[in-house]
Amino acid sequence: MTDAATYAIGIDVGGTFIKAGLVSPEGEVVAKDESASEAGRGPEHMIVRMADAAGRLRNLAPNGSTIVGIGLGMPGTLSHRDGIVFMPPNLPGWKNVPVAALLRERTGIRVSLENDANCAAVAEFTCGAGRGRRHLVLLTLGTGVGGGIVLDGRLWRGADECAAEVGHTIVQVQGRRCGCGQLGCLEAYASASSTAARAEEAIKAGRASSLSNVMQAKGRVSSLDVVNAAGTGDMLANEIWTETCRYLAIACLNLHHTVNPELIVLAGGMCAAGRRLLNPVMDAVRDYGSRMINKPPTICLAELGNDAGFVGAGLTVFENTRA
Amino acid sequence: MTDAATYAIGIDVGGTFIKAGLVSPEGEVVAKDESASEAGRGPEHMIVRMADAAGRLRNLAPNGSTIVGIGLGMPGTLSHRDGIVFMPPNLPGWKNVPVAALLRERTGIRVSLENDANCAAVAEFTCGAGRGRRHLVLLTLGTGVGGGIVLDGRLWRGADECAAEVGHTIVQVQGRRCGCGQLGCLEAYASASSTAARAEEAIKAGRASSLSNVMQAKGRVSSLDVVNAAGTGDMLANEIWTETCRYLAIACLNLHHTVNPELIVLAGGMCAAGRRLLNPVMDAVRDYGSRMINKPPTICLAELGNDAGFVGAGLTVFENTRA
Repeated sequence: MTDAATYAIGIDVGGTFIKAGLVSPEGEVVAKDESASEAGRGPEHMIVRMADAAGRLRNLAPNGSTIVGIGLGMPGTLSHRDGIVFMPPNLPGWKNVPVAALLRERTGIRVSLENDANCAAVAEFTCGAGRGRRHLVLLTLGTGVGGGIVLDGRLWRGADECAAEVGHTIVQVQGRRCGCGQLGCLEAYASASSTAARAEEAIKAGRASSLSNVMQAKGRVSSLDVVNAAGTGDMLANEIWTETCRYLAIACLNLHHTVNPELIVLAGGMCAAGRRLLNPVMDAVRDYGSRMINKPPTICLAELGNDAGFVGAGLTVFENTRA
Repeated sequence: MTDAATYAIGIDVGGTFIKAGLVSPEGEVVAKDESASEAGRGPEHMIVRMADAAGRLRNLAPNGSTIVGIGLGMPGTLSHRDGIVFMPPNLPGWKNVPVAALLRERTGIRVSLENDANCAAVAEFTCGAGRGRRHLVLLTLGTGVGGGIVLDGRLWRGADECAAEVGHTIVQVQGRRCGCGQLGCLEAYASASSTAARAEEAIKAGRASSLSNVMQAKGRVSSLDVVNAAGTGDMLANEIWTETCRYLAIACLNLHHTVNPELIVLAGGMCAAGRRLLNPVMDAVRDYGSRMINKPPTICLAELGNDAGFVGAGLTVFENTRA
């Protein structure tokens, strides 16, 4: 630790937890803080809780070190440029909140707001599955399907900040209705939620499956229930899981033929399925893939766990400092 | 014209013509040359013809000016990095030809090899529909569907030089077989050739259409025959043209949600249809597009005609000089 050490405060805000940490430019975490979001109490209260987390971390910063800024990762549509969150899912009362300015006011520290999938992409790029690469695309498979694109070591946000919204690329013409209003989005097939929803719909429609027991017991089915049941030979579960993986393969091929990153990283809750996710996706890429592709896309699982969000949020501060 | 004037020789090689010109860094053309490709006589002969064109243009260069290099635009899969053409369609005998080195040997001028759609993208970016923009994606709608991506003013070629191969993104799961071997590629629906082919197939399958007269007279149907017949109320032609435009709309939306350029430029032979192409594509974008997109993609027609190929080829030389 030198006198010149600099850190960013990375904060990852979700519907349940606020996860935060003191992050070095290399993505090293020197202090961590986790608290409840208390999302039900609205944005003002949550911003106080973010500021409190930042305050605690500031007190934990090594003597003589500098805090260069707060990186704030949040879900849903938002503007990094303007520091405004438009309408995140699962956070009641948040509508067009200028959260970067409000949190800066409260902490006196400059705040860089970033989409949570972009944060995960930066974290995996710097100190996870993408270490040593120059370009990657990351897909988060959770409630929705988010994306982050790093090209030549920098986040690519696009002209209107809607680059990397891979979850809303259309993979099935006139397909399932997505939460965004479009038909046939990747998110309508390959998110954890839509995988679970497709299983539930099939069971309600009378399809026989061991998952109906799960549904009776828990009132719902998760994407991991689906992959587990598929592993035991359940026909319906196998059909749905295969479909999820095949749509992911199409998305990976389309990214390969558009952005052509060095690496496509699968992240988010559904990655708990591990090789049972990765292998069928890679099989389907080989199945669908063109014979003229010399080199198929390289696909892997994320390496950083739940810390990726706040680590990446912190790292974006250094990116913006350099810019 | 100053003493320090520099020019590149841009050469656009197709199956029928070699189009070439002396191009300034701003894309101005000070001399032009057009000759037959004589593709049937194989690569060696064609390279001699390219060298001859370069020689004639060199003689036309203003006194005191410098030729900084030859930019060579060619169709099909190739490596800019290695200067090798792998297997272009419509050019018999070309297989893994190190054309950049061979043409350099013959002319003594360094040669930069570039995919023809990339050349068109650079030309439209510098002095066509993309003037004043920072990012664009261009799609060429001809025999195939090619693509070129310019981000922050530079060509984006991808990690393995297969970025912008938008023609081979999948827009229809288990759809029509593409020339590349994949099922459901954009190219299998939205190229001029596949638009014509779908019409011919339907007529052969017995569908009634005014296009059957065209087919009897010419032995074939072109994409422009299809759009013309659609304009006169022909049901089949209308159905096929609408399908072409709807798949193009899906590709534009997917590009918007992946790369998010400022502008998507439609180029290539099928653009002779003008607003009869652009309007239904934009209508379909609005139809399909998510209600959550604040700003739909901006789509327009290419402005440069047949010169775009050699102008862009020449411009890539300056890009490489600056790099």
